[in-house]
Parts: sequence; C-alpha cells; structure tokens
Amino acid sequence: MIKIIVDAMGGDNAPYSSVAGAVAASQKDKELYIIFTGRKAEVEAELQKHSYDKARFEIIDCPDVIEMNDNPASSVRRRQSSLMHAFELLKTDEEIQALVTAGSTGAVIVGGQLILGRIKGVRRPALCPAVPNSRGGYTLLLDCGANAECRPAMLCQFAVLGTVYAKAGFGMENPKVGLLNNGTEDHKGDTLRQETYKILSGMKGIDFVGNVEGRDIVLGDVDVVVADGFSGNIALKSMEGCGKFVLNVLKKQIKSSLISKIGYLFMRKALNGMREQLDFDKTGGALLLGLKKPVIKSHGSSKPETIANSIANAANVCRGGLVPAVEKLLAEADLAAAENFDEHN
Amino acid sequence: MIKIIVDAMGGDNAPYSSVAGAVAASQKDKELYIIFTGRKAEVEAELQKHSYDKARFEIIDCPDVIEMNDNPASSVRRRQSSLMHAFELLKTDEEIQALVTAGSTGAVIVGGQLILGRIKGVRRPALCPAVPNSRGGYTLLLDCGANAECRPAMLCQFAVLGTVYAKAGFGMENPKVGLLNNGTEDHKGDTLRQETYKILSGMKGIDFVGNVEGRDIVLGDVDVVVADGFSGNIALKSMEGCGKFVLNVLKKQIKSSLISKIGYLFMRKALNGMREQLDFDKTGGALLLGLKKPVIKSHGSSKPETIANSIANAANVCRGGLVPAVEKLLAEADLAAAENFDEHN
Repeated sequence: MIKIIVDAMGGDNAPYSSVAGAVAASQKDKELYIIFTGRKAEVEAELQKHSYDKARFEIIDCPDVIEMNDNPASSVRRRQSSLMHAFELLKTDEEIQALVTAGSTGAVIVGGQLILGRIKGVRRPALCPAVPNSRGGYTLLLDCGANAECRPAMLCQFAVLGTVYAKAGFGMENPKVGLLNNGTEDHKGDTLRQETYKILSGMKGIDFVGNVEGRDIVLGDVDVVVADGFSGNIALKSMEGCGKFVLNVLKKQIKSSLISKIGYLFMRKALNGMREQLDFDKTGGALLLGLKKPVIKSHGSSKPETIANSIANAANVCRGGLVPAVEKLLAEADLAAAENFDEHN
Repeated sequence: MIKIIVDAMGGDNAPYSSVAGAVAASQKDKELYIIFTGRKAEVEAELQKHSYDKARFEIIDCPDVIEMNDNPASSVRRRQSSLMHAFELLKTDEEIQALVTAGSTGAVIVGGQLILGRIKGVRRPALCPAVPNSRGGYTLLLDCGANAECRPAMLCQFAVLGTVYAKAGFGMENPKVGLLNNGTEDHKGDTLRQETYKILSGMKGIDFVGNVEGRDIVLGDVDVVVADGFSGNIALKSMEGCGKFVLNVLKKQIKSSLISKIGYLFMRKALNGMREQLDFDKTGGALLLGLKKPVIKSHGSSKPETIANSIANAANVCRGGLVPAVEKLLAEADLAAAENFDEHN
C-alpha cells in the first residue's frame, strides 16, 4: 500500500479537482491509499459524486485554507490549514509516503522546508517539472522557481537531485545532465555559470555533458537541465507560453476557411496527438526535490486529470525509492569542491 | 536613397544568402543602395546569377573572413575582414546608414562597440529581436545575449532603447514596457529585478506596466520586455526550441496515417499560415540597439529571405529616425536615479 496525502483545498478548482483526480488515480492504481486534508463536509460532498473504494479513502478535517495571495512565510503558522496540516502529518506519520497539492507555490516551499524538512546535506529544495521533449520522453528542468538566487554549490546539488529523479521516476539508467547557459561553449555565461561548469565537470556520480541552451530543453538531447530558479522559471514559462500560442494560432487557422475545417475532420486525431505530446501537465506538476519525502506541486489551475497524474507520479517516485537514492548519491558525489568554493567567495 | 552596407561573407550560407537576400530587398525597395564587403570575385560570381539594378550595388573587396569560432575580442583587429571593414566604413562614411550581417554575434558586438561606438550616454548595446506574438504583432525582447551580467541602470536603459525601437521600427505610439521576472507581483525576483522595478516605476518617457513572466512574451500584452542578456537569451531560445518542436511533432502526426495525410491536403494553407505566424525570422534577426548607427545581426543560418527581411528592417528603422530618437529619449528619461543606484552599490 502507498499512502499519499492530498491537500483537497489547494488550487483554483478545489476541492472538485483534487477529489475527482484522487478517485481517478485510485481506480488505476489499486495500491493507493488517499488521505485528504480539508473542510470535511465539502470534501465528503465532492467524494459522494463518485463511486470509490471506501476502504482506501480518509478525510482529515482542516477548517483553514491558505489562499494563493496569502503571504507564504506567515502561512506556515496556520497549522489548521489543509496544506500545513498535511505537511505535519507527512512529517510525523511514518506510513504516509508523499504529498500532492495544487496550493500556492510559495507556501508549499516554505512548508516543505520548515515543517517537513530537507534531506540531510541538501542546501535548498528545487522545483522540478518534467518537460515533454521531441524524443517523445521528458527533460527534467530544475530549479524552476524555488530559488531566485543561487550559488554554485546549489546548482551542483540540483544536478544530483535531477539525476536521482530521472532514475527513480523515469527509469533512465544513465541520465545526461546539462547546465542551462546562453551558449554551449565552455567559457559561456556569467560567473555563476562558469564556476558551476568547472565543479560539475569534476563531479562523481553524474554524467555532466556541458552547457546547453534554452532550445535544448525540448529538443531533449540531455535528460536533466540544471538552472537557477530565476532562469529556469523564465525558460519553463516561455515554453508554456509558446505552446499555448501555437495551439491558439492553429485553432484560428482551422476556423479561417471551410476547406481547413473539412481538413480538420480528417486531421483531428493527428492534431489531438500533437496536443497531447505538448501537454506540460501530463506528468502532473513539479516535484519539490530535496525534502525528506516526495512533495508534488500541481498547477494552481489543475484539472482532475492533472491531479491524477500528480498522484501517479508521487506513487511512482515512492516505488522508485527517490529519497534514499538522493541520500546515497549526495554522499557519493564529491561536493567538497563546490562547498569549498562557496565558502571562500 | 538609403545606403546599407551588407557583410556578404557572414553566416553559414555566405555569400549565397547575403547576395540573393540583398537583391530581393532591392527589388522591393527602390530607394535601397547596397554596398557589399567581402571577397570580390566570390560576391560578383554570386551576383551574376541574378538580374539586379547595377546602379544600386557596389562591392568592396575584403580578403579576410571572420569565422563563427574565431575569438571575438581579437577579431576586431582584422580590419581587412568583411565584417570589421564594414564597421569602419559605417563609422567613417556619413552616407552609409546601417549595417546588416549574419556573422558571429560576439564579433558583431565587439566591432559595434569598439569601431562604430555607442550613442553618447548608452552604457552597453543590447540585442533586440522581434518575437511574433498572439495579437499578430511583435514583442521586442532585449537584451538577448549581448550582456550576460547586468546592473539596474543597464536594464533601465534597455527600457528606453526598446521603447524607441517600438516607435521608430514598428510605429507603436505608446509601447508598454514589462520587466521579465519569475512572477508578476511587485516584490518578485532577485535584487537586480527588485531594484530595477523601483527605478523603472519612476522613469519618465516610458510606459512601464510592471513585471511580466516568460509566457507574456508571446502572449503580447506588452510591447517591450526588458531582461538581462542571460535570461533574455534563455527565453528566446526556449521559445524558438518550442516552436521547432511543435512543427516537428505536427509533421510526424501528419505522416502517421493516410487519413491525416488527406486532411493535410485540405489544411495545407492553414498550416502554412501557422508556420508563417511562428516564424521568428520574419523581421530579420536582431537589432543591436544603442550604437551610433543601426546594426542588424541576422541568424547565422540565414536564408536569402531572412537577409532580405533584415535589410528591410534596417531601412525601416533608418526611415523612422531610430538613433536621434534614442538620443532624445535618453535625455528625457530621468536616469539619474538609476546611475546613482549603480554607483553606490
């Protein structure tokens, strides 16, 4: 059995999406056991709309809900909120293996660090979405927003975290790691990139292949792309925006003439296949890597399907043994050089 | 007459693309006068393949060619190269109004600053491509790679340069300016973004609307997006990569069945319309803003069409009076706060 705690009240479509998504996930994966945190009456009412296996669902009543605009730092004290109470239970209940929420990113990062806590040796957790790539697989991009300002040692740890996620979550045997930069030559980028490049080149346990550019994330010649949270966020949102733009343009073009509307009838399957391959939500949000247990931050606008994917992803990394693998690789990878550099600069 | 100097040897497809592109541009715009720099025999041989107005073309023989891999800093001394000689002529010949090259970006930036020189008061030039957006127009994104590390005063100047380009090159009356950030809230981002936000908010002569995210570049609610050269480059290349990815997926999906192939026959026009709207090269490369005369850096892989677009864009900003407008707005915009901040931090 895999016990996953789901913040039923997180996100714009809560508790509808969280409940419907969890039910869908539990139907696909019979090992799942779902614990909701949230306003019990609301969650129960939503749950009644579905047929579900009552033996595998549980609701913990939490009267408070953290909203998207609430200050993340002060929201951590609201232990009766669905999100922070979920973190509490995740920390204290050994049987609960992971948390899924569509709540405020800032609150998730703060709660994850202050309540659940980081894996020993991890400086800062990193948000890591899986971006669909042109090989038909995924490129893991981290950090995507948890840390706007980074030091070389943090980026080097992200390389370790991403490598482990690629192995434990996606079954990649020897994931290739690239450093997001403004050119592929060795000397490219600012001081942060140049120093990180040097340290990554000598690190054990990861397969660092060098600098990569923004376009390489979707082209997918590497499996893990390491970035500071600022530029990782810019890259992710630029790609998401571009994907939406393309689908909008296509929609307009199809509607522009009768002939193209007829063509669409023939091409519907192909175009839906395209839309599916471009779906940034297919793996269900971003994993917040580096915490003592897996935490998945699903989009604020998550639909039931997104939540279901996030829960499946959480179960997947639990089965893959993500956290012990992070501990092991952190010990193996010789990060002394990185730590040393940071202390003296 | 508008005299434009074209580095015939720059780019992967030189001199074929430069020559064919210049001929095409000159046929569309009868006011154009083209001066090529390059290996005369090669350029002439290429030119003979076209019918062109001999009275409006000139070739200056330059035996040397700067290659993509040559060190930019040392290449500036190679004054017999097609690129650096073009900069020399642009600086000394008052009649020559602009330069177009598909040569190495690094060499163009160094040559532009050391030979041609910056407009008085401009700290650093910025590379500014025009990104197609979902309104059917363009969003100007700067800097996209000339300056990996930036200070607040530089970003504030980019806001001025972008505003002027939007007016002089695209006829926008009151361009909206956004600051590329990892969220839209006022306090978002690192120290650089937070300081820049404060100064931009009080600046005269520009219409600063606040922080924007990566997705807003293609969505196009703003006209000018200001970024440091590192994250601007990441954003641009992430979008380009995503655009290519989409077209590749679409191609594969069309080929996947007979029915979708039939559908394609009906939808060809619509899909070509989409491809055209996604074309990042339609405005012809990036303008290197802040120099004493307009310099356009066309893609290294420019096709004749790209070069023709770059030349048309150069003529356009000359007619729009780009450089005097930059001088005027720089004086108007109160940059004292920005300069002051930079000096004391």
